[in-house]
Amino acid sequence: MSDKKDHIKDLSRRHFLRNSAVTGVAGASLAGGFGAGALVRSGSAKAAAGNEHEVPPGELDEYYGFWSGGHSGEVRILGVPSMRELLRIPVFNVDSATGWGITNESKRVLGPNAPLNGDTHHPKVSYTDARYDGRYCFINDKANTRVARIRLDIMRADKIVTIPNVQAIHGLTLQRVPKTEDVFAVGEMIIPLNNDGQNMDDTSDYWTMMTCLDADTMEIKWQAIVDGNLDNCDTDYTGRFVAASCYNSARGMTLPEMMGPERDWTVFFDVPAIEKAVAEGNYTTLGDSQVPVVDAREQAHEGRNPFALYVPTPRSPHGVNTMPPEGKYCVVSGKLSPTCTVVEWSRVAEWFDGGLSDPRDTVVAEPEVGLGPLHTTYDNRGNAYTSLFLDSQVVKWNVEDAIRAYNGEEVNYIRDRIDVHYNIGHIKASLACSRDVDGKYLSALCKFSKDRFLPVGPMHAENDQLIDISGEQMKLIHDGPTYAEPHDALMIRADQLNPKAIYDRNDPYFAETVAMAQADGVTLERDNKVIRDGNKVRVYMTSVAPSFGTTEFRVKQGDEVTIVVTNMDTIEDVSHGFALVNHGINMEIHPQQTSSVTFIADKPGVHWYYCSWFCHALHMEMSGRMLVEPA
Amino acid sequence: MSDKKDHIKDLSRRHFLRNSAVTGVAGASLAGGFGAGALVRSGSAKAAAGNEHEVPPGELDEYYGFWSGGHSGEVRILGVPSMRELLRIPVFNVDSATGWGITNESKRVLGPNAPLNGDTHHPKVSYTDARYDGRYCFINDKANTRVARIRLDIMRADKIVTIPNVQAIHGLTLQRVPKTEDVFAVGEMIIPLNNDGQNMDDTSDYWTMMTCLDADTMEIKWQAIVDGNLDNCDTDYTGRFVAASCYNSARGMTLPEMMGPERDWTVFFDVPAIEKAVAEGNYTTLGDSQVPVVDAREQAHEGRNPFALYVPTPRSPHGVNTMPPEGKYCVVSGKLSPTCTVVEWSRVAEWFDGGLSDPRDTVVAEPEVGLGPLHTTYDNRGNAYTSLFLDSQVVKWNVEDAIRAYNGEEVNYIRDRIDVHYNIGHIKASLACSRDVDGKYLSALCKFSKDRFLPVGPMHAENDQLIDISGEQMKLIHDGPTYAEPHDALMIRADQLNPKAIYDRNDPYFAETVAMAQADGVTLERDNKVIRDGNKVRVYMTSVAPSFGTTEFRVKQGDEVTIVVTNMDTIEDVSHGFALVNHGINMEIHPQQTSSVTFIADKPGVHWYYCSWFCHALHMEMSGRMLVEPA
Repeated sequence: MSDKKDHIKDLSRRHFLRNSAVTGVAGASLAGGFGAGALVRSGSAKAAAGNEHEVPPGELDEYYGFWSGGHSGEVRILGVPSMRELLRIPVFNVDSATGWGITNESKRVLGPNAPLNGDTHHPKVSYTDARYDGRYCFINDKANTRVARIRLDIMRADKIVTIPNVQAIHGLTLQRVPKTEDVFAVGEMIIPLNNDGQNMDDTSDYWTMMTCLDADTMEIKWQAIVDGNLDNCDTDYTGRFVAASCYNSARGMTLPEMMGPERDWTVFFDVPAIEKAVAEGNYTTLGDSQVPVVDAREQAHEGRNPFALYVPTPRSPHGVNTMPPEGKYCVVSGKLSPTCTVVEWSRVAEWFDGGLSDPRDTVVAEPEVGLGPLHTTYDNRGNAYTSLFLDSQVVKWNVEDAIRAYNGEEVNYIRDRIDVHYNIGHIKASLACSRDVDGKYLSALCKFSKDRFLPVGPMHAENDQLIDISGEQMKLIHDGPTYAEPHDALMIRADQLNPKAIYDRNDPYFAETVAMAQADGVTLERDNKVIRDGNKVRVYMTSVAPSFGTTEFRVKQGDEVTIVVTNMDTIEDVSHGFALVNHGINMEIHPQQTSSVTFIADKPGVHWYYCSWFCHALHMEMSGRMLVEPA
Repeated sequence: MSDKKDHIKDLSRRHFLRNSAVTGVAGASLAGGFGAGALVRSGSAKAAAGNEHEVPPGELDEYYGFWSGGHSGEVRILGVPSMRELLRIPVFNVDSATGWGITNESKRVLGPNAPLNGDTHHPKVSYTDARYDGRYCFINDKANTRVARIRLDIMRADKIVTIPNVQAIHGLTLQRVPKTEDVFAVGEMIIPLNNDGQNMDDTSDYWTMMTCLDADTMEIKWQAIVDGNLDNCDTDYTGRFVAASCYNSARGMTLPEMMGPERDWTVFFDVPAIEKAVAEGNYTTLGDSQVPVVDAREQAHEGRNPFALYVPTPRSPHGVNTMPPEGKYCVVSGKLSPTCTVVEWSRVAEWFDGGLSDPRDTVVAEPEVGLGPLHTTYDNRGNAYTSLFLDSQVVKWNVEDAIRAYNGEEVNYIRDRIDVHYNIGHIKASLACSRDVDGKYLSALCKFSKDRFLPVGPMHAENDQLIDISGEQMKLIHDGPTYAEPHDALMIRADQLNPKAIYDRNDPYFAETVAMAQADGVTLERDNKVIRDGNKVRVYMTSVAPSFGTTEFRVKQGDEVTIVVTNMDTIEDVSHGFALVNHGINMEIHPQQTSSVTFIADKPGVHWYYCSWFCHALHMEMSGRMLVEPA
């Protein structure tokens, strides 16, 4: 009985919302006060433990964490549980330290005229049989409608693709079984199908699409037009489906219009059905794009839509998260409804296979969890953990108990709550997106830090809190300030990743530069040569601590100069950098790596270059001169 | 007697260097093996303590740490002792998150055609009476020869100055008393005095300079030509002198040439003497620059040089650090000599005032401390702590005992050693550059992390270790991986900084944008207006969570569009961002801030903009459309 009493007490503080689980917030006027209201509540942390989770100097972390960097445009690797940042991986941003966005090798990945910014949200590590295989991390760019793939052996992006026909890639997820061959990327904003400025005013004819890329080639396989804005997405554990939440089913242009219906949708896509249509030529293309586009809107189909199932879901649903380790259920978090909607994946299959009459029959539970549920993650003991933005809490609830409650049993499915600081967005437990879910740690990615750290001016750190979920009660063990913004994260076990310590000389990342050297008759590992080709000059040099192989070269003002440096050091961590003073040039050259940069030598005179990566006691003496003769 | 025995034992491992304290390394061939040799030694940390220094969730750090970000081009604020990164301050880099390098306000600071990279080394916080006053942090850019000033109330750079006549600003330091009016910036590389390409071959006529800037106006007050490359620098505690180390007194171009002499110099500048010469018109100018240049080379003066004292110092001396709290001594670390050279500042004054006959008479000690001494810091109990790059150690030694030893007494001045991991560069104890030195914590900025963290590919984190120096023995308490590269750091007490939580509406950082609005008749705090001025369009909008004041505006293809957003939220930490999809645009707009960005609307069609800074449960709905009519 105490369970039941706790349940009632638990819900009483938000009694005003209890009339209907699907009502959500009372309207935009109430919603208008969320930001302020949520912030003034301080909340008291449960007693901090912490010491048992300390990683003392010299000891290694148990998990790799992959953190998106939000509008910083990067991806970060953290050690968990220490929550120390081990690496920033530049992706859509320009990075002064590594020369990402400056070197020829990075520009080949970024493409011509690449924007200077990005907005990474949802990092996903590739799977084999729903287990992390350590090959790739994929990441979206909402700001410039791109998808990137990061090679996890060298921790550098090797492919960046701009997605046509849609605007703002938001949700991103991967096929889990048999392995990651498909990458699913959600277009968020609705736009005219041919967005050429001819038909901007009829907003009723704005649409967006689900996009599927080939994980190996990064070519776009297909797109599917859908009803409503899409938001977040996840796949099942059979390899057949991908689901996306829809937060603006009314396709409104303004906040009041977007707040319209009490239920939007979760959209389930039958991937083989779409592939079959594409294979059979049942698709169109748009504008200059050659990408096959199928129509998954309800209006395009009489009778049952073969491509997409729209399950009404309360209200502006946000996170979509399949429950490990078997992937039986998919939980969609209500955002503007205090509920999570639990869909059973086998029922989705049943619907597509012609069974069930009402899309809502796929729903097996709709627990009331708290205010502002955004995302849900899991332990290995049948419990779900949902982030509550408005409550600034994490709520732990039992999925099977929620299903029993939905079926009319009197059961308290709520197991625990913990205050977080403040206004949590994403949430992720260790290995919770894979079969190996282990229920140890949970990262709570909080959007506001407010008073949790020493003040550093108008821009506050956000706060990635780490919570021990191994026991009955959640325990807050770490406050982790991070730079704007840590959007989403995942943790994999340390043994699930095996990066290279030094580059292979035949690494494809700099293969084009190697080919250029070969065409010039240059052996990169040995030669220090200057090749002139009209007004193009290619300067090849080696680097071995503490010297560049070339310490002086001469060009003419106006020459297009390409510097190619090959680091012949073979000892792990003996990196060099090449910085050319007053020319805006710096680049990384790690052991056995070749890096290159091209620029116009537009300033006559002597210009020093130096090693920017501390390498040796004589590091400061590792330098050389470019002599530019006046034109 | 045990002290003595320890001393002998301590020195025996490097007996091969004992013949002369000034011999340093045996030559370049030996030096060539440093990088490898230093790295294979693993070293065992002294027992880690740690728990007593833990900062549990919700508690605040005791110190602010200002960390340069090296070739990342930024400055970072860490909390100490937690070593958590509280903020990145973009300075010379492009920053996707804040729009630094993209917004009009940041471009005004960076200047036109700013490079995309920087190389920050030596952050210095302004003083009043040799105590931190929390006004400014100054920072150099070695890569593009610049000096920046960061306002510590808003944590944004407000002035960036490119220094003429020199190449690669390396050392940077500040006047301590009566307050910071002078900023000293060291030009490292030697170049022809008129570097126009006419006189590149006569390397015997390459020179560099010390530069002095006005801390309030950031105008360059004077430059002084010197003998040799300059390296690091520090001021005294009287306001009269600045000293710089010189690592290439032979002015060689290549490593063997640079390794020439057994002694280089520490150069002491008499600032009032230089100011007097400038005031009296005894200076020249070079090329287009109007900066007064005085000649502080020895060759320019018969008899005693009135501007500069060159104190022979063994060998390629590197760090220059005045000892707090009174500033009696200056310690110069030998780099290629196993010694530190202790100069008494009052003797420097004596020399400039006509006393002493030999510059070496200013030296009061030259303790042998270990291999590769780079920088020295201090506690409040008379001890110095020197970083040993080759030994990968911090050595603690007593300054007065080193002076007694130099005077012939048999005394062991070495107090303790601790292994660090690995190959330490800079070192800094809490408040050690100010009168308030407190001898609590020491940051050891290690250039290699090697095996200390989970492997993350060819690029390793560096390792900022934190050491408790409050007791007799040093205790390693934290390994802190950081992104390339944490070059130098300083710590100030939490009470010594008082940043603003929200912007003042009259903040000068966006005053030009406010003036533009006023000229357009726009009240930024209220108006949402589109002003057309030929093919220039200015779009003014407010932002209040979760809405932009303007959710739709229309321009013509080819228009130059300026977006101005004013964040009218007044609650601390409720920041907004403005991202325009597919246009490479993102910017920060913190509470009460105005931010603007200008671009060409070159793509017809509908283009969404959205709030990139999570602000509210309806954050994703905070968006609007730019409609671009085809040309």
